[in-house]
Amino acid sequence: MQTDRTRLRRQPGRGSHDPAVVHAILDEALICHVGLQIEGAPVVLPTIHARVGGDLYLHGAAANRMLGSMATGAPCCVTATLVDGLVLARSAFHHSMNFRSVVVLGRAVPVSDDAEKRRALEAIVEHVARGRSRACRPPNETEIRITQVLRLPITEASAKVRTGPPLDDESDHGLPHWAGVVPLETRIGSLQPDDRLGERAEPPDLASLERTRPS
Amino acid sequence: MQTDRTRLRRQPGRGSHDPAVVHAILDEALICHVGLQIEGAPVVLPTIHARVGGDLYLHGAAANRMLGSMATGAPCCVTATLVDGLVLARSAFHHSMNFRSVVVLGRAVPVSDDAEKRRALEAIVEHVARGRSRACRPPNETEIRITQVLRLPITEASAKVRTGPPLDDESDHGLPHWAGVVPLETRIGSLQPDDRLGERAEPPDLASLERTRPS
Repeated sequence: MQTDRTRLRRQPGRGSHDPAVVHAILDEALICHVGLQIEGAPVVLPTIHARVGGDLYLHGAAANRMLGSMATGAPCCVTATLVDGLVLARSAFHHSMNFRSVVVLGRAVPVSDDAEKRRALEAIVEHVARGRSRACRPPNETEIRITQVLRLPITEASAKVRTGPPLDDESDHGLPHWAGVVPLETRIGSLQPDDRLGERAEPPDLASLERTRPS
Repeated sequence: MQTDRTRLRRQPGRGSHDPAVVHAILDEALICHVGLQIEGAPVVLPTIHARVGGDLYLHGAAANRMLGSMATGAPCCVTATLVDGLVLARSAFHHSMNFRSVVVLGRAVPVSDDAEKRRALEAIVEHVARGRSRACRPPNETEIRITQVLRLPITEASAKVRTGPPLDDESDHGLPHWAGVVPLETRIGSLQPDDRLGERAEPPDLASLERTRPS
């Protein structure tokens, strides 16, 4: 998966081209940021994604300008980032973050096959909440038609991961400042049922909404 | 702040060019994603930022390739996104997210003035944890020299915000599926003190680490 473009230049010890590492980060990240050159300048927009095997799927309204540009085969970059903690060091300089990120470079392909499009949209719903695609009305013909789905093969990709404590200079260890890691976690708040919800409606299983998958 | 490039094309009702809205999202977002065209293809990387007045500051190692490209005045895009909740609708099609995002377009300027550089680095530490810049060793001459700081004026920017319940088709309201919002929150886990921490070290005040600022 490594190419000259995805070679990790800064702190290569934190990098990986292992598909298992890349895939796990893409799966855990709820959203990604897509970069595309539009009219001579880069544009970065957040979107939701789903990974199916070695492919990444993105979707949006058929009239969406960004997806339209991507569909022409323009080079794009999809980046997904998980922030695991703040790293507070004794010096301002060595402050850092514990994070896991993936960068996927390539060119997306519009999905025209109806069955693949339906599978991709199902995967996107499942990416958000496992089991949800069977607990809602599937897309009808019109909805499928007005939705654009793109496939980006995960062939040129790299992951970068920082873990562990601050790495202070030896000479700073005598300073009185607190140092360590402040873990950050995404938590699910209290479900907010829709006002017009019928009494039969079964709320989603909270475990299906957790981002971190048991390994 | 609106230009033709930041005009909101999709669902303009969700957009804003109000500096107060733009600034609040940039302040609450811990990280941003920077997009830049490098060797003919867009690259998107996560980084930390700080807003000071109408400017956004970014920093990194002086040898950092991305910052180096930005420092030449190449057009760039900085996007910050907060995901507030999953929006589960009765139909797969109307699933959505509650989010707040900001896109800043422009060209960054390298900061060479020593005092501005120090203020920017201090603001970046304060962005992560309020008060922290006075609770650690400030950067020395060498650290200042090997750190690149860039200033991106927030002149061409837009915010996009989705809030509220799912917007299901009227004809789907009789379906038995649960619908509503699943709020997502970033929480601070148990502090992990560094192994070699002295006993005098005062842990950071947890309120200083909360992302949402009291308004």
